[in-house]
Amino acid sequence: MKEKYQELLEYRNSIDNIDSALVFLLAERFKITKKVGYYKREHKLPAGDPNREENQIDRLKQLAITAQLDPEFTKSFLKFITTEVIRHHKHIRETGSL
Amino acid sequence: MKEKYQELLEYRNSIDNIDSALVFLLAERFKITKKVGYYKREHKLPAGDPNREENQIDRLKQLAITAQLDPEFTKSFLKFITTEVIRHHKHIRETGSL
Repeated sequence: MKEKYQELLEYRNSIDNIDSALVFLLAERFKITKKVGYYKREHKLPAGDPNREENQIDRLKQLAITAQLDPEFTKSFLKFITTEVIRHHKHIRETGSL
Repeated sequence: MKEKYQELLEYRNSIDNIDSALVFLLAERFKITKKVGYYKREHKLPAGDPNREENQIDRLKQLAITAQLDPEFTKSFLKFITTEVIRHHKHIRETGSL
């Protein structure tokens, strides 16, 4: 039984490592989208860009298939991130800062 | 104006690279949680584990602060992922496969 429990611990250690990597990658992603937000404000571009988003979804769904990840989950994931990004962009447009 | 547009393209290229990395990391994460799902079925453990989830949230919020990522967004992000994982675990428990 102890050996089995050890197996679960090992899975969880790997999940924790991946989660750390995800957090640091997301932090970098938001640093860049923040710059995009300022750029859009400067150039009076809208906070969202449906064409760009559609292309992102298509590209990531293809990548998901290669990676054996559920493409529909990948779409929801991108939507989840993009919703936060658009919220940031609107905030930057309205207030000049984030 | 062309130079400015170039700047936006460069931001977007970096975002695309990060998104690719996120997709491949998520794919690996779900490979491991799938194993956890089978493990839990075998050992008759529940699909979710509130203690484990609480610890994960605390740990990732601390990491988020280090990475300059919004801790509350990080919490929502983990919740988003965990909801999908628990759905998988329930499916594995009920059907024996994913």
